[in-house]
Amino acid sequence: MKIPAEIRTLIESGTPAHLVTLNRDGSPQLTLVWIGLEGDDIVAAHLPENRKVKNIRRDPRVVISLQANTKSAMGLTEYAVLYGEAHIEEGGAPELLQKLAEVYIGAGVKFPPMDNPPRGYITRIKVKRIEGVGPWTGRPV
Amino acid sequence: MKIPAEIRTLIESGTPAHLVTLNRDGSPQLTLVWIGLEGDDIVAAHLPENRKVKNIRRDPRVVISLQANTKSAMGLTEYAVLYGEAHIEEGGAPELLQKLAEVYIGAGVKFPPMDNPPRGYITRIKVKRIEGVGPWTGRPV
Repeated sequence: MKIPAEIRTLIESGTPAHLVTLNRDGSPQLTLVWIGLEGDDIVAAHLPENRKVKNIRRDPRVVISLQANTKSAMGLTEYAVLYGEAHIEEGGAPELLQKLAEVYIGAGVKFPPMDNPPRGYITRIKVKRIEGVGPWTGRPV
Repeated sequence: MKIPAEIRTLIESGTPAHLVTLNRDGSPQLTLVWIGLEGDDIVAAHLPENRKVKNIRRDPRVVISLQANTKSAMGLTEYAVLYGEAHIEEGGAPELLQKLAEVYIGAGVKFPPMDNPPRGYITRIKVKRIEGVGPWTGRPV
């Protein structure tokens, strides 16, 4: 689906993404990751072949939660929940991490910090549905 | 398990909890909730018998993610991920919501705002494992 402008702004503000994947036994796994946009795809990068890479290869169902620093009229923290399908691509992680580090840490940072990092993995997510509390839901709370 | 002092402080700071439950088809569901501590149990309250109440009745596996407003030495946002087992209790929701509203919205607020709210449901979570980035993991990042 097309990512609404308010969600694009939220992502580009550098708020970390709570990314949920599913373990082999069906239990949920959650880590904070940096995300960016490529058109309407959400992308994240991983240097090692970690648990979430293996989980997504087995089951593409993921959730991303983004906490905004704004409050609804009722005083609730606004947030966006993006339900989607993910797949893993080989390579490209250092370049994407460098780009995202400038959003999430700051301009001029070198990331990953080591020389000659592994090529790593990219997670690419197609968003299917957006929930949460905020202008992106169309429901006042 | 015993909740470490740093996690107790994080919970009592009023940072909202990203709560993951599992839908009937095994896909993850995520909403932001207010949480409190009763001893080493984590508690949340719900007025309607919503999706997460039904999900927890069917599958007790939940995850809570708490985003701190501190950064690690490397510049990463610190956060705690609490893996646990939840169960649902009937009633008690308005009283717990009133208590949590004073933490999450502010002293003197009336919550829920309506008169004669339903008795609702309490989610009680036993924490089995803690992950994330921060002093609670014992691993520098």
